[in-house]
Amino acid sequence: MKIVELKSRKSKRKSVKIGEGLPIKINANIGTSPVGIDLKKELKKVDIAIKYGADTIMDLSTGGNIRRIRKEILSYSKVPVGTVPIYEVFCRASRKGLSIKNIDEKFFLEVLYEHFEDGVDFVTIHSAVTGKAIEILKKTKRVGGVVSRGGSLTLRWMIETGKENPYYKYFDEIMRYAKENSVTLSIGDGLRPGAIDDSLDELQTSEIEIQGELIKIAMKNNVKAIVEGPGHVPLNEVEKQIKFIKEKTYGAPLYVLGPIVTDVAPGYDHITSAIGGALAGYFGADFLCYVTPSEHLSLPDIEDVKLGVIACKIAAHSANVARGIKDEFDDRIFSKARRKLNWKMMQKLAIDPEKIKKRKKGVECSMCGKYCALKQV
Amino acid sequence: MKIVELKSRKSKRKSVKIGEGLPIKINANIGTSPVGIDLKKELKKVDIAIKYGADTIMDLSTGGNIRRIRKEILSYSKVPVGTVPIYEVFCRASRKGLSIKNIDEKFFLEVLYEHFEDGVDFVTIHSAVTGKAIEILKKTKRVGGVVSRGGSLTLRWMIETGKENPYYKYFDEIMRYAKENSVTLSIGDGLRPGAIDDSLDELQTSEIEIQGELIKIAMKNNVKAIVEGPGHVPLNEVEKQIKFIKEKTYGAPLYVLGPIVTDVAPGYDHITSAIGGALAGYFGADFLCYVTPSEHLSLPDIEDVKLGVIACKIAAHSANVARGIKDEFDDRIFSKARRKLNWKMMQKLAIDPEKIKKRKKGVECSMCGKYCALKQV
Repeated sequence: MKIVELKSRKSKRKSVKIGEGLPIKINANIGTSPVGIDLKKELKKVDIAIKYGADTIMDLSTGGNIRRIRKEILSYSKVPVGTVPIYEVFCRASRKGLSIKNIDEKFFLEVLYEHFEDGVDFVTIHSAVTGKAIEILKKTKRVGGVVSRGGSLTLRWMIETGKENPYYKYFDEIMRYAKENSVTLSIGDGLRPGAIDDSLDELQTSEIEIQGELIKIAMKNNVKAIVEGPGHVPLNEVEKQIKFIKEKTYGAPLYVLGPIVTDVAPGYDHITSAIGGALAGYFGADFLCYVTPSEHLSLPDIEDVKLGVIACKIAAHSANVARGIKDEFDDRIFSKARRKLNWKMMQKLAIDPEKIKKRKKGVECSMCGKYCALKQV
Repeated sequence: MKIVELKSRKSKRKSVKIGEGLPIKINANIGTSPVGIDLKKELKKVDIAIKYGADTIMDLSTGGNIRRIRKEILSYSKVPVGTVPIYEVFCRASRKGLSIKNIDEKFFLEVLYEHFEDGVDFVTIHSAVTGKAIEILKKTKRVGGVVSRGGSLTLRWMIETGKENPYYKYFDEIMRYAKENSVTLSIGDGLRPGAIDDSLDELQTSEIEIQGELIKIAMKNNVKAIVEGPGHVPLNEVEKQIKFIKEKTYGAPLYVLGPIVTDVAPGYDHITSAIGGALAGYFGADFLCYVTPSEHLSLPDIEDVKLGVIACKIAAHSANVARGIKDEFDDRIFSKARRKLNWKMMQKLAIDPEKIKKRKKGVECSMCGKYCALKQV
């Protein structure tokens, strides 16, 4: 499937289609952390994310009663909701006082199926992190290490137990249940580069090969599946990355996390990812996960969510324009309004109308005043 | 000259080299407007711009005693200072009660030479806006109109007087004085697209041809000259634009204003221009002019200047990395520090150290807490 509709069997939320030829969609991550548990705040993040154009929400909660929080978010959100069940596997095990090596593989499946049961529209499972990765990890000279929470927790469990990743081992069973529940499987990139130096290294490329194998099986079985992509990628490798992943994964819808094009700008990763996301979208990514200014620093607050969504929307729209795909914004109509200094019209058409509403009144803007270029010829 | 050193004969400020093979430099515009005159504030903008990495400053003042303000900024700034003398031509004429058609062509030169005398390091002159543009303007279907202040004021004067642009007509004389004073001529793009729809239209391309002719003459006469580029350019045309301009202007250092890749995001044009600027830099632009969040809305305040400089720095650095050119930031060393959760080291190495300083203390960040990916394997 080159186009996937995110909507589970039980969902009353609107559906969203992602994939080839469609306008690029964007996702906003929300959720509690062990040191930040406030459901009301998370629901406010849902509101602000949707207000500024998030097409989907992912609940990445790792603090508090995760299932209860998920259910609240599922009933609150008007847009599709995704989750990463493995977080809950480790959080619940930890609360039960279980050490990592004592987590049973069946528990990975049990938690995953609870997410299906609760009606999530899509889940990230890091099924492409396998025993092979442990071999590569031993000899790797990665600069950034393993930066995916799901990926690193899976590896840790595999190393401690000596067993294969349950989300890989039981992939057939998982597919069956996913299909039954009409849940989309997002094949995570647990080994994505977390430093631009690691872009397209052996850990990443070997995982992409496995993502491709799994996607092939999913397509054969008519199971909705998408692929997750990086990560940290230098500007000059974005095209290569996107085309490589698209080719290896049979054109399945590609969901990228950024990519961010430099590592040195914490506090501004909504910008580093807008650069990478716009380019990734132009070269074929279908779905962009936002990155907020607080990435690499802290759990995002509400303002971070707003800035993250807007920056991601800018990236998606810029890529849509470059690909000649219409979305909800129209640069030509907007610029015609600007040409006439028609602020009311611009306010209606802008990505963030409030920025125009809040400007000082006056026909021209306060940068040029009466020397406004638009009034001369 | 494919490399130009910005430093005038009288300058005691440090010099900055721009051009082929060098790390991309960035410029921050400051200056008063008719409705915002506060010298102290402008000097604070100089401080903050330099603090966050601006390599040069342009004083675009159009409010208050422009010459006095310029002299203050020239003596205050530690980095090269550029100006756009035509603004002062029109401001002073207006104050004298002169209508546009009564401004004498000699006054254009008089004001320009005052800027040379005052010791500015580079000046933008819109010498490539000529009578030819008026012909094209009559039949053009531009969406965004003429958005360069200098370009539109020049056209207005030419239309009202029926005369040729003095900065074109007297280009030879201007070159001589510029050379004497070691001032760099920045050949402005008065007809740049101000809407992505207008990218590479006849108005723009015909001006680029003339920019090329002027650059050729300047090179022949060993006069320091650079070229200004757009503007509003869709993502898919950035490469074409940059390569076209570079080719037509004999590889002269290219100074781009953005480019911004969508028109619909006022309030976030530091982001739309970071996308375009990173790409432009990757494809050969040498010098990026920042765009602040307040572009298209108001005169920037101090926070806008900070955000504009940082976004522009991110674009420049990302492009430097992609081109394999070392600058003051090192992604590998930074990511090694991140791998070790060494926040002190990251603080030293980040584009904005304060963002790291202000985070909540703790070994891991508050997004994942004890589930930090970096601590698992």
